[in-house]
Amino acid sequence: MTKVKTVTASMLIIGDEILSGRTKDANLTHLSLWLNRMGVQLKEVRVIPDVGQVIQDAVNELRRQYDYVFTTGGIGPTHDDITAENIAKAFDVPFVQSEKSLALLQQHFGSENISDARLRMTMIPEGATLIKNPVSTAPGFQMENVFVMAGIPVVMHSMLLDLEKRIFGGDEMLCKTIHVFEGESFFAEMLEEIEQDFPHVSLGSYPFFRNKRYGASFVLRSQVEEELEAALDMLKLKIGAMGKEYFDGEAKL
Amino acid sequence: MTKVKTVTASMLIIGDEILSGRTKDANLTHLSLWLNRMGVQLKEVRVIPDVGQVIQDAVNELRRQYDYVFTTGGIGPTHDDITAENIAKAFDVPFVQSEKSLALLQQHFGSENISDARLRMTMIPEGATLIKNPVSTAPGFQMENVFVMAGIPVVMHSMLLDLEKRIFGGDEMLCKTIHVFEGESFFAEMLEEIEQDFPHVSLGSYPFFRNKRYGASFVLRSQVEEELEAALDMLKLKIGAMGKEYFDGEAKL
Repeated sequence: MTKVKTVTASMLIIGDEILSGRTKDANLTHLSLWLNRMGVQLKEVRVIPDVGQVIQDAVNELRRQYDYVFTTGGIGPTHDDITAENIAKAFDVPFVQSEKSLALLQQHFGSENISDARLRMTMIPEGATLIKNPVSTAPGFQMENVFVMAGIPVVMHSMLLDLEKRIFGGDEMLCKTIHVFEGESFFAEMLEEIEQDFPHVSLGSYPFFRNKRYGASFVLRSQVEEELEAALDMLKLKIGAMGKEYFDGEAKL
Repeated sequence: MTKVKTVTASMLIIGDEILSGRTKDANLTHLSLWLNRMGVQLKEVRVIPDVGQVIQDAVNELRRQYDYVFTTGGIGPTHDDITAENIAKAFDVPFVQSEKSLALLQQHFGSENISDARLRMTMIPEGATLIKNPVSTAPGFQMENVFVMAGIPVVMHSMLLDLEKRIFGGDEMLCKTIHVFEGESFFAEMLEEIEQDFPHVSLGSYPFFRNKRYGASFVLRSQVEEELEAALDMLKLKIGAMGKEYFDGEAKL
């Protein structure tokens, strides 16, 4: 039997501004694609408000359920940035000043410009390690399997650079896509057969309307390359046998 | 004491394609803004995979915790569309064919074109009522406080039209925004004071970088209009007293 190693992650998007519709999240897709390159599968995302107990409960639930948890948002200098202190509470450890973080901010802003607000950004749960912020200095941090990052996309994306050596992935999820210009229901039975025939392949069907034509993208995903290729060949064969054409898609996820 | 009526909702985005990064969600912001107009506050969003037990558990958790639950995705004609059957399981009711839905599809596609795949879209939990789909006919459904909708944005958005009379909101969350061109940490202490002085107002601070300048948007939200206006006046006053300028923002959420 084929053995695959699967490593999982969840993402916690913390912020009233996403829930209220004011700001569109721009980190989910980026994190998902990055994780996939690391051999990690994003299995759940939650968007929650800036409420301490809600943050604590969600972090504790997710860090036990998944190999890694990535949070975004709520680590700035103002009163509504409450993520860090609630991570400390979730882990039941003291909330302490990081000397290293303080030194970084002093160097960046000048010692004379370290206000109470900026000091707030130097506080981390005891035992946490910093995550470098090449864009705007104030670091994120890692506490066990939880990675706490900024919400601003350019900052969050830059923080991932520092995590490449801290994440240990499994077998990468590989992906193949083909498109047809015909309603997906026409192929429904055939698609189900293929998924049943290839136990390590998941097959998604996504309808679209493009250039005034209905169509569907069939997305095959697997951690077992040979099986993925065999399923793709079978899918193409069956579409051809049904008298239909297919078009190769980009190898998107 | 000021009394406010708060009605809450959560959203469940069902689909491997969102988690894998293949597709960007385009429904969260739309639903959030629509709900706000209905006097309902979106309090939590979860993105979960097409896995039956995960769907059931999430629906059961969220429908007990919030006044309304809105799901998107997984109600099409193919094998990977498993939302409807798992909503039935979550409610522990039979999964039955809707005569009304069947009639709609027969009318739309012609009786001779109702394949097994299309029949799949006529199945709903016993006791559910249909949600009209003006775009592509195949309906969504409401089961108690859970609204099950399509994932394709244009379809999902059109389904909301049929829900306007089924949602009973509370006091609308009102919102005012002003911007400053100065780092948010400069104002941190003052912002905290304002939030403490106005118990029915939440005040968010969102940094930005625009036209080569750093700045921050201060977003005041409240269900009590007089308090919102008073907090806004106080905020403007204090920014002025600090020798800084502010700029009125659009009344975005």
